[in-house]
Amino acid sequence: MEKIRLGIVGYGNIGRGVESAIPSFSDMELVAVFTRRPPDDVQVKGNTEVVHFDRLLDYKDKIDVMLLCGGSATDLPEQTAKLVADFNTVDTYDTHAKIPEYFDKVNQVALKSGKTGIISVGWDPGLFSMVRMLAGAVLPDGTDYTFWGKGVSQGHSDAIRRVKGVKKGVQYTLPSESAIEAVRSGSVPAFTTRQKHVRECFIVADDGADPKVIENEIKNMPNYFADYDTTVHFISEEELRKQHSKMPHGGFVFRTGFTGGGENKQIIEFSLKLDSNPEFTSSVLVAYARAAYRLNKEGVSGAKTVFDIPLSYISHMSGAELRAALL
Amino acid sequence: MEKIRLGIVGYGNIGRGVESAIPSFSDMELVAVFTRRPPDDVQVKGNTEVVHFDRLLDYKDKIDVMLLCGGSATDLPEQTAKLVADFNTVDTYDTHAKIPEYFDKVNQVALKSGKTGIISVGWDPGLFSMVRMLAGAVLPDGTDYTFWGKGVSQGHSDAIRRVKGVKKGVQYTLPSESAIEAVRSGSVPAFTTRQKHVRECFIVADDGADPKVIENEIKNMPNYFADYDTTVHFISEEELRKQHSKMPHGGFVFRTGFTGGGENKQIIEFSLKLDSNPEFTSSVLVAYARAAYRLNKEGVSGAKTVFDIPLSYISHMSGAELRAALL
Repeated sequence: MEKIRLGIVGYGNIGRGVESAIPSFSDMELVAVFTRRPPDDVQVKGNTEVVHFDRLLDYKDKIDVMLLCGGSATDLPEQTAKLVADFNTVDTYDTHAKIPEYFDKVNQVALKSGKTGIISVGWDPGLFSMVRMLAGAVLPDGTDYTFWGKGVSQGHSDAIRRVKGVKKGVQYTLPSESAIEAVRSGSVPAFTTRQKHVRECFIVADDGADPKVIENEIKNMPNYFADYDTTVHFISEEELRKQHSKMPHGGFVFRTGFTGGGENKQIIEFSLKLDSNPEFTSSVLVAYARAAYRLNKEGVSGAKTVFDIPLSYISHMSGAELRAALL
Repeated sequence: MEKIRLGIVGYGNIGRGVESAIPSFSDMELVAVFTRRPPDDVQVKGNTEVVHFDRLLDYKDKIDVMLLCGGSATDLPEQTAKLVADFNTVDTYDTHAKIPEYFDKVNQVALKSGKTGIISVGWDPGLFSMVRMLAGAVLPDGTDYTFWGKGVSQGHSDAIRRVKGVKKGVQYTLPSESAIEAVRSGSVPAFTTRQKHVRECFIVADDGADPKVIENEIKNMPNYFADYDTTVHFISEEELRKQHSKMPHGGFVFRTGFTGGGENKQIIEFSLKLDSNPEFTSSVLVAYARAAYRLNKEGVSGAKTVFDIPLSYISHMSGAELRAALL
């Protein structure tokens, strides 16, 4: 079988996740990792070629789909529209508010180049968006809930590390268990910010720093913590390294709908519990590389989202196999 | 806005569910209910016209999509391929083992007639199938679990009502809570039939019947109960009517996958808790009527399944609206 030839653009957490995911997808192969750094400085896991960004176009005929693994703040807004002029792309753009503008920009270039650019793939945006759409279409009369966690929040972890006396720290966002139970019960509750999520911090303090002062400053930090119930734990550097170096995440999407003129409650729940957020996101990205490849083969070009693509396009199975095994 | 004009074929639980769901879908309208019974004997909820099967073809230009609400045992295998010669159709065909053959039969006729027939829509097959496919594509290394319930099983309820001394009875299938917890924990357990589901029966006994004899006969019934832990409750006729006349159902789909060479566990969970199984199934059916209508407008004909249709086709929102609100 001819394999789908993939390139990785950007070698951070997602790029490494994609690299480790590809061997599980038997119909795909990794051709090269592209980086802005001097290629010799980038140590990849296998024998994959590491290539500087400046030489990207040399791979125009050697790569079927480029997996864009840069950040949404600055990398993707700049890179995707450029790359889709020459490659099919899949990216994880996740700045929700700017997705429409981003879509239009990628779409314009892709329609001209005849390439396919699948945007905002992952789990939120991505799988969570699909469940929200599906649940809303099926149950028009209803209420949605999304909870995130338990997971490491990078922004909040950065914020606690800026507090004086904090040497190292990790912040977890957790859905409130009582809120989840209330939604599951079908009671359609309304929540304040404080009622939906709680925050938990693990801190390594500087020698001589006062834990009470640190805890107080964190708990009262506006925007980040003041609106939440926050717990602060002080631990040793070794414990931090041993217990808190993974990047777990997850969350819940619910829709509680009513049918029969409001008489009957129908609850849809979807959840993820992820040991590694970047590895899961990367796995979704790789599955959607199949879709980009197939759509483009069929002559479908332009920007696409998870809403636009039949599910079968991300499976390695044929339509007949899917109907026999999974329907 | 011009509405999508729907017809209901068969007026049982699903047909009634469709009738009660349509008002929640602002872009659809119900034109007629078709029945094999004398139309005057069929009492519908609103003012909808009730029409005999023999006059179906008179509605060829008056109905955009026919929702086929008959049973999978005899009605649909006979009706769908006939109807798709003249109408776009959506059905709930759920005999898993025969789906490939059913698909081929509907597909042949639909390709000739230029109509679109969406088959096996509902929640299993349907939403559960979609989640199984999606989860398997995203996490190639993993294990699937499906649990059903708490829900009324029609076949098992019929079986207990055939036991001597049973006047009336309802049987619920329940997922074992400890099994669900074991899967959620990520331990990837293997289960026997007995460990996955339990069965609960509510019986109204005939006057003078011996409850011990009834209980014993039920618990040892081969195929239906012998392989399960079964609980039998004897209740009054009034309690049965008050507490057990709804048709709840639901279930769970899990996939526990591994990434990072097996180092990290990733758990996907999807569940439904339905007060009314037929009303929920009907709501899915109506949402997919949108897809049948749109696909056919675009010239896409033949048999289709939930795997073949982009999610956006079941939403009333435009692509731009979906990207802004739900991605």
